Amino acid sequence: MWAGPKGWDFLSGAFFFSHRKNTATDPAGSLVIESDLFQLKMADPWQECMDYAVTLARQAGEVVREAIKNEMNVMVKSSPADLVTATDQKIEKMLLSSIKEKYPSHSFIGEESVAAGEKSVLTDSPTWIIDPIDGTTNFVHRFPFVAVSIGFTVNKKMEFGVVYSCLEDKMYTGRKGKGAFCNGQKLQVSQQEDITKSLLVTEFGSSRTPETVRIILSNLERLLCVPIHGIRGVGTAAINMCLVATGVADAYYEMGIHCWDMAGAGIIVTEAGGVLMDVTGEPFDLMSRRIIAANSKTLAERIAKEIQVVPFQRDDED
Amino acid sequence: MWAGPKGWDFLSGAFFFSHRKNTATDPAGSLVIESDLFQLKMADPWQECMDYAVTLARQAGEVVREAIKNEMNVMVKSSPADLVTATDQKIEKMLLSSIKEKYPSHSFIGEESVAAGEKSVLTDSPTWIIDPIDGTTNFVHRFPFVAVSIGFTVNKKMEFGVVYSCLEDKMYTGRKGKGAFCNGQKLQVSQQEDITKSLLVTEFGSSRTPETVRIILSNLERLLCVPIHGIRGVGTAAINMCLVATGVADAYYEMGIHCWDMAGAGIIVTEAGGVLMDVTGEPFDLMSRRIIAANSKTLAERIAKEIQVVPFQRDDED
Repeated sequence: MWAGPKGWDFLSGAFFFSHRKNTATDPAGSLVIESDLFQLKMADPWQECMDYAVTLARQAGEVVREAIKNEMNVMVKSSPADLVTATDQKIEKMLLSSIKEKYPSHSFIGEESVAAGEKSVLTDSPTWIIDPIDGTTNFVHRFPFVAVSIGFTVNKKMEFGVVYSCLEDKMYTGRKGKGAFCNGQKLQVSQQEDITKSLLVTEFGSSRTPETVRIILSNLERLLCVPIHGIRGVGTAAINMCLVATGVADAYYEMGIHCWDMAGAGIIVTEAGGVLMDVTGEPFDLMSRRIIAANSKTLAERIAKEIQVVPFQRDDED
Repeated sequence: MWAGPKGWDFLSGAFFFSHRKNTATDPAGSLVIESDLFQLKMADPWQECMDYAVTLARQAGEVVREAIKNEMNVMVKSSPADLVTATDQKIEKMLLSSIKEKYPSHSFIGEESVAAGEKSVLTDSPTWIIDPIDGTTNFVHRFPFVAVSIGFTVNKKMEFGVVYSCLEDKMYTGRKGKGAFCNGQKLQVSQQEDITKSLLVTEFGSSRTPETVRIILSNLERLLCVPIHGIRGVGTAAINMCLVATGVADAYYEMGIHCWDMAGAGIIVTEAGGVLMDVTGEPFDLMSRRIIAANSKTLAERIAKEIQVVPFQRDDED
């Protein structure tokens, strides 16, 4: 029933996932299906985790959509623009307890756990990297781009990523070697490698330190005057990166974000044919708090040339 | 059948518009309906024009959605970031010829007609102010915010505005004294008057003149460091303004845009309870190429305090 590699690819999408559940309850075909499932699991030990991540992200999205209807109690973290709500904390707890129950040997890095004092160190262990609400400021204002982001690494390499844009009901997924999808549609980055014809996405960030803001703006000035077609920003790193994967933006860059902002969408970009690079032009480092996610090495390197680095403490530094 | 003022309000929305058409063909009730319609037209001489604008915007949106599937031939206008396509020109021609046929005595200001040498002077005559594609750069990149904008003034005052966000299929409308709607849902601006808790929308604009870019960025720097919650930009003035009307952003400001970018959405903001103001804090002037559209006078005035004016030639200057 899902004989070819195309059917397997499609499993990453949410549509096929629910289809599989229905089919698996069909008594007539259950033996064949279970044997297929066994072979697939052997071939891909992390697919089950990814399916679970999709289910969890969808449940979390439901909580976001309910919570956004109500009054919110907003608290600040590192700056007056770095916000958190009880919903961020509730969703992270929900995700962590579900995953820990099912995969007790796995490791975790979660935005709100780190805010509460947990360490964020990436090891070789299978690791779930979670942002319960990417775009908390959007969430607070009901600006319609809010994502649940779940990344998964093994031996420090990204294995899969799930980004659920809850208010748009868009489920983005990427699985190493198997492509990237949005609601079952295969994603492909754009072909535009000429920076002067490019559309970039980035954010001003949540730092309000004058020196940091100044460097962020001077980078924008240099890029705008290359010149480029334009710059957009919808307010979440994960969705901005998914826009690059979808091909509607040519590249995204940012400094000051965290591993949980990038871990879910990073592999969605690479599986859509894009590249990740450090803003220095060196290889991408998930714990470095900075990224260029572009449609091509050419465009990423060209952007790196214009960017002055803002110093931020690494995610894995005390 | 549409006895109360609420039903009448609702006519601004696209849903009720098509409902009216269906009902009007019902032979049993046609006489009563025609008599109702006659009274409504007497009470509101411009409602028929607004209904027509909604129909035309929807037709234009269909052309946009078809065209975005194909290769585009992109031309530049005032700067390497000021783009135009054959679709902009085609839609403007389509809109103008339809309106001229139905309302031969009315006046027109259209983005592409002005680019082709027509004057843009606002008179007391009933005037249709048209942007066939607001967000042409988005359109070129398939970035999903592209609007058809139709504003209508009489005695230089905005009477109604229609902004159709074609890729989202959102029809925003505003009618003087009758409220603002999106797909039939009444719009209301946010209540947040404290700038330090505000989310703003703006754009970098299409000018790549170093001095202009520098002022635009220094305004952003001052606003970010007030501090505010954040700044977003989806790449079209009309949709940014509709986001203010919807209450998910607290204010929008920009300089360097044109009357056709503001005429459709301006009345949508005011009918949703918001205000329009010049960036100097003086009264708004549709031909001035600048605007603050905010949820309140308080927030608009506070933003005006931070903004240094970029000099742009007025729309009605030769």
